[in-house]
Amino acid sequence: MKISNRVQKIQFSAIRKLTPYAQEAKKNGKKVYHLNIGAPDVEVPQAFFDAIGDFQGKVLKYPSAPGIDELRESWSDYYKKRNLNFEPENIFITSGASEALLLVLMTIADEGDEIITTNPFYSNYKTYMDQLNLKINAFNTSPDNGFALPSTEEIEKVISDKSVAFLISNPTNPTGAVYSREELERLKELAIKHDMYIITDEVYREFIYDGLKYLSFAELEGIDDRLILLDSISKRFGACGARIGAIAAKNKDILTSINKLATGRLAVPTLEQIGAAALFNSDESYFEEVNKEYEKRRNTIYEELKKIDGVSVYKPKGAFYIMPTLPVDDAEDFAKWLLTDFDVDGETLMMAPADGFFYNSNEGKNKVRLAFVLNVNDIKKAMNILKEGLRKYNS
Amino acid sequence: MKISNRVQKIQFSAIRKLTPYAQEAKKNGKKVYHLNIGAPDVEVPQAFFDAIGDFQGKVLKYPSAPGIDELRESWSDYYKKRNLNFEPENIFITSGASEALLLVLMTIADEGDEIITTNPFYSNYKTYMDQLNLKINAFNTSPDNGFALPSTEEIEKVISDKSVAFLISNPTNPTGAVYSREELERLKELAIKHDMYIITDEVYREFIYDGLKYLSFAELEGIDDRLILLDSISKRFGACGARIGAIAAKNKDILTSINKLATGRLAVPTLEQIGAAALFNSDESYFEEVNKEYEKRRNTIYEELKKIDGVSVYKPKGAFYIMPTLPVDDAEDFAKWLLTDFDVDGETLMMAPADGFFYNSNEGKNKVRLAFVLNVNDIKKAMNILKEGLRKYNS
Repeated sequence: MKISNRVQKIQFSAIRKLTPYAQEAKKNGKKVYHLNIGAPDVEVPQAFFDAIGDFQGKVLKYPSAPGIDELRESWSDYYKKRNLNFEPENIFITSGASEALLLVLMTIADEGDEIITTNPFYSNYKTYMDQLNLKINAFNTSPDNGFALPSTEEIEKVISDKSVAFLISNPTNPTGAVYSREELERLKELAIKHDMYIITDEVYREFIYDGLKYLSFAELEGIDDRLILLDSISKRFGACGARIGAIAAKNKDILTSINKLATGRLAVPTLEQIGAAALFNSDESYFEEVNKEYEKRRNTIYEELKKIDGVSVYKPKGAFYIMPTLPVDDAEDFAKWLLTDFDVDGETLMMAPADGFFYNSNEGKNKVRLAFVLNVNDIKKAMNILKEGLRKYNS
Repeated sequence: MKISNRVQKIQFSAIRKLTPYAQEAKKNGKKVYHLNIGAPDVEVPQAFFDAIGDFQGKVLKYPSAPGIDELRESWSDYYKKRNLNFEPENIFITSGASEALLLVLMTIADEGDEIITTNPFYSNYKTYMDQLNLKINAFNTSPDNGFALPSTEEIEKVISDKSVAFLISNPTNPTGAVYSREELERLKELAIKHDMYIITDEVYREFIYDGLKYLSFAELEGIDDRLILLDSISKRFGACGARIGAIAAKNKDILTSINKLATGRLAVPTLEQIGAAALFNSDESYFEEVNKEYEKRRNTIYEELKKIDGVSVYKPKGAFYIMPTLPVDDAEDFAKWLLTDFDVDGETLMMAPADGFFYNSNEGKNKVRLAFVLNVNDIKKAMNILKEGLRKYNS
């Protein structure tokens, strides 16, 4: 029976492809530390569960396609506190930032069109491009300068007349780069020059370290018609399993088109929207505490990785990922081996092989992406497993 | 700024395109009876809310892409009680039957491929085809014989070498047809002959009237590799706002491919899956009561429509839609006028113009789709508004 070409082209998710081995390891009684996926271990604020528990309705009709007013309003209030002037009607609720990206790509691009991103990039970007037969093009960024944007000339080299948008995650998954005003302004000028959209994925907005100040593309002037922001409650509130995201945009054609597409899928769940609305009423101190906790985790994983012989590592400025280079030829084989053949006192760890995050998968061959979403003690234990594992694997 | 060709092609949802007028009518103090959308007014069984309220976790990580075990198991048990032998691993949880259809179409079809369905068909089928640049082809069904399948020759006329699947809703939205074994067997033979998939949309499985016995495609022999079932809790449990659906299939390539696609969108919400699992443990008497209630509603709307001068109507055998022909030239204009310019004692109704449900939209020009999802009294009031509205509109 026919399986579509588009699906055959898609690679198994870099983040989940070792899942069967992790499941097997657990079945055999091993404890597995999950550093493969950005699913925080922090508790979702109780307000989420309380709001859902307080729901008095008995009937669950389809909510409206763009989302319930209550959530769009509280999201807008949250933006305004951050100098991002999106009104409720500029906000379209989606099933996570993932559906947000799918709807946006469908809206602005046709088969064969190109989307320009950083190399490395978040692996699921490519999954969605493949689903829609879009082409991904990427300019290189390097750990040598904290994965900063390259020169304007370098970026321009990968732009063609088929390029319809930049797709930038900021802070960046998987590198932890956080862009300066100068970098954002340069991309903005290129977007204007080549008449491209800027899709800015800001789901890690609150995860910024070393006292850096975060600047959003949405704070720049003169790009209201070309700026599309992707957002989500998953990381910010540790609420990955709620699957609530959003598109924020001021271009009315974009919003109308997304509404046309999205009425096909009808709506996003009522209860999760009610819970999410309550989350956005969290006190600002909540974000500060989360940030402090993650800065500790970032410091821990960085210091522990530095201690391991042959590992090369940089210090991420934001988000909660780090992508060390390991002293192995095939990081995927090593990551698999950790699950199938290795443990320290019955414990092992799961990592995401980095090849799926690179334009040429070979570039990621000796790298892994680690999500520092566990507490400091667990991170230390996991890094010890990595150290001992490398010693044994290489001997 | 560029808006994709695919989006420009898509029509506004037939079911929701009059929503702005309904909102305006409500703002002006009118009560609006919603017969435009299949969102039942019945209460979701309390078990749904109880299971969600009982959730003891504080952390909401991503559930696995194919869904939580608890839900896949309870859904499988439900199927087995109905002689549909799907194991938990044959069931893939989705965000409603809508996402189920999107994932299936992406998996089996490439741009330019054709999907064969009935004419009329559920309007959102076309929305998804347009999103993916697939072609819809349709064979005619007619109220004269209860929208039964036409002859094998008539069906074969619309099949070409680009046809990859039949997409059949059974019971049918919007016509209420319920297919006999003989009809299913004929489609099965055609699917085998032309090496096509059969996508069977069975979200209305429990809505069958006049003591008819329901037969699923999944009860037929010899099509395990080509049968893909789409399902949802929305209609069955009145839980549209939960957005929980499923794909059931035995073809392992299909399931593996859907998993590849679906890891991009990560997962379906945890809490709603927990609630849905509880729903499937409902006693069988629940379905009998719902069925009895909907048979009453079907009888009421059919009898009331018959009494209206110039309206031509048939008696649906299943689902909860009826598509009368009205004595107007432009049903959309009339439906809009009911919202903007008419009321009976401050009340009016919203209907779905039928043009979006037809292969050639002209065929639906003087028809509307009514969802009999309100209680008998409300249906009577709504049909009185329709009667009085027609009288005034035509005078």
